[in-house]
Amino acid sequence: MDFDVIRSQLNDKPVEKMVLLVMDGLGDIPMEVGGKTALEAAETPNMDSLAMKSMLGLHQTIRTGITPGSGPAHLGLFGYDPLKYKVGRGVLSGLGIDFDIQENDIAARGNFCTVDDQGRVTDRRAGRIPTEITVRLCDLLNERVRIPGVEVFLRPVKEYRFLLVIRGEGLNANIEETDPLIVGEKPLLAKAMDSESEKAAELVQEFVRQAQEILKDENPANMLLLRGFAKLPDWPMFPEVYGLKSLAIAMYPMYRGVAKLVGMEVMPAAHSYEEEFEMLEENWEDYDFFFVHIKKTDSYGEDGNMPAKIHEIEKVDALLPRILELDPSVLIITGDHSTPCAMKSHSWHPVPTLFYAKTCRPDEIGQFGERACCRGGLGVRFPAFDLMALALAHLGRFDKFGA
Amino acid sequence: MDFDVIRSQLNDKPVEKMVLLVMDGLGDIPMEVGGKTALEAAETPNMDSLAMKSMLGLHQTIRTGITPGSGPAHLGLFGYDPLKYKVGRGVLSGLGIDFDIQENDIAARGNFCTVDDQGRVTDRRAGRIPTEITVRLCDLLNERVRIPGVEVFLRPVKEYRFLLVIRGEGLNANIEETDPLIVGEKPLLAKAMDSESEKAAELVQEFVRQAQEILKDENPANMLLLRGFAKLPDWPMFPEVYGLKSLAIAMYPMYRGVAKLVGMEVMPAAHSYEEEFEMLEENWEDYDFFFVHIKKTDSYGEDGNMPAKIHEIEKVDALLPRILELDPSVLIITGDHSTPCAMKSHSWHPVPTLFYAKTCRPDEIGQFGERACCRGGLGVRFPAFDLMALALAHLGRFDKFGA
Repeated sequence: MDFDVIRSQLNDKPVEKMVLLVMDGLGDIPMEVGGKTALEAAETPNMDSLAMKSMLGLHQTIRTGITPGSGPAHLGLFGYDPLKYKVGRGVLSGLGIDFDIQENDIAARGNFCTVDDQGRVTDRRAGRIPTEITVRLCDLLNERVRIPGVEVFLRPVKEYRFLLVIRGEGLNANIEETDPLIVGEKPLLAKAMDSESEKAAELVQEFVRQAQEILKDENPANMLLLRGFAKLPDWPMFPEVYGLKSLAIAMYPMYRGVAKLVGMEVMPAAHSYEEEFEMLEENWEDYDFFFVHIKKTDSYGEDGNMPAKIHEIEKVDALLPRILELDPSVLIITGDHSTPCAMKSHSWHPVPTLFYAKTCRPDEIGQFGERACCRGGLGVRFPAFDLMALALAHLGRFDKFGA
Repeated sequence: MDFDVIRSQLNDKPVEKMVLLVMDGLGDIPMEVGGKTALEAAETPNMDSLAMKSMLGLHQTIRTGITPGSGPAHLGLFGYDPLKYKVGRGVLSGLGIDFDIQENDIAARGNFCTVDDQGRVTDRRAGRIPTEITVRLCDLLNERVRIPGVEVFLRPVKEYRFLLVIRGEGLNANIEETDPLIVGEKPLLAKAMDSESEKAAELVQEFVRQAQEILKDENPANMLLLRGFAKLPDWPMFPEVYGLKSLAIAMYPMYRGVAKLVGMEVMPAAHSYEEEFEMLEENWEDYDFFFVHIKKTDSYGEDGNMPAKIHEIEKVDALLPRILELDPSVLIITGDHSTPCAMKSHSWHPVPTLFYAKTCRPDEIGQFGERACCRGGLGVRFPAFDLMALALAHLGRFDKFGA
């Protein structure tokens, strides 16, 4: 829903507590016609019993048919329409490796690449060099690049990919990408696309010059390409828009990062589901909203390993009574997107959602699964960004509209 | 969905094949409470068995409660929101009689009418003269009207109705209608509503003057009225937006016309369902997308003849294995609108839809009918223009949104 509508209706009533429990990539499809999805196959007595008191449905985080990346998918769950609130690739890259991007930073995704003696790109990925080499090259550049007045950070991501951050004053990130996208061409000049970005573009150009000199005797990674220049977005912040003191609990950097991006406080990385649930319990009195992220449902979906995905869902189900014991007024259990084991990738399939609230109208389906959710009171293919509005309503936080 | 979103996500992956099988006016309501709809009453073992592997739902081509005409209804199925992509009546009229309207043409719907000796309209439909007279009068006007620099085409439609096309350079169609809409008034002047339409308006006025002179001794059709001046729209074309080489197969001009309007290639008129299915098979290797149109379900709905409508649905069901034999990656079976036999007209009732895809999450309802579709995974009253976005997803043609 529109933040202006939320702001105009939000009251000052005492805040009740809610939990958003996200099992990453939860949605699935059967491995064969007539089969079950992971969530349908999993033994989930606690979720099924909660479903009897809840509303079910299937949400979409972006739009019909569009497969979400992790960042936009979570923004959708947090109530930010991902088509309106776009995060630059450079910033997403920083979130994914836990780099603390700051307000004045510009960030870009980088590739190490190979150029010939004329400076033309012969391999955009430098033969997909292993991460260890990228670690060494980033260290080398961090040590040797010197640009007066700014700090430069290089951080390895994976294989040939790295993050570049330039920290200084008055930098803007409307800068053309240097990756020519085809081999046989020279890297492009990092040109400013508006006058506010001219200073930053010159700094990037200077960085590229120095990097080229430093890397020139390396083989095969003797040059680099930069894409997706971005700054932190200037968005309405989650705790302010919703009037909820908010805490994010997750094991992986991307999810802590996207929570931080919308202004949530973020716990240090947890190392197990048990630790995540302990963090929830220990902080229960101090926050109103808790985002708890479960990663491995997605990982096993990406691996195509349905038995393991089922097992992760069952582990979460076994831990669910610990949340119920805390007696939240609203509890949403869902995924950020589907990751069907049969596809081994994220997909566009709508995501099963269980919405428990003390004031909800239960649809009494009593089973949490994709096809059960088709019959639920939340509907099918509803926009994920409606969930927070519905949650605020059930928390008693909205004034009546009109007399 | 928005074409901009589709364009931004579309990739270059190899194209798989899909079929959109439209049974015109498919949706229905029971003849009496407790009764069945035509689709529910029809024996459709092939569709029911396909439904077990598919998703079901009920779409709307325009908006809730709005009854679609054939042109807009098909545009909705093709992914063009009919509220945004409007076709002028003159152009629709041309599509309906297979007249090849060209880029520079202006087209209008005409009525032969009766005027008194003061030139005032006494009958807007000239006593509903039969089509034969309209044929003769169109021939007469085609023979005698002479306007320098342009070509003028009159074509009979049905009863007192005809199509007028003026072909020339620099013509625009923002022209006021000449039909006063009530009797007792004189026909109105075809005034230009913007400066770009002044040239065309003068040509129309000259045409009306000559036509009045030529028709003056006819009885009762001694004058004509013109409405719905229009040009071909300048829209994104279906094959380009979706990246699908597209073929339309239909028996009636309107459906070939609206397919041509969005840039599909169009087969010559088929004369039977069998011939339509042969065309599909013969062209299978050469196209990615096939629109196959079945007319008579609508015609019998308009007649209020439910047994005949049921029989047409059963004939299509018997032919369905020929499509399945081609092994499309996506197959959509639906209507463009409802034509309830009890109402003998198009209606606003949502339209049953079966969406089969190799990667779909079957809802396993196993019966293709209006009430079965209420429980399906596509949802009820979803916008028809989402179908193509969903189809592209299942064809593997969308990139992930965000990292």
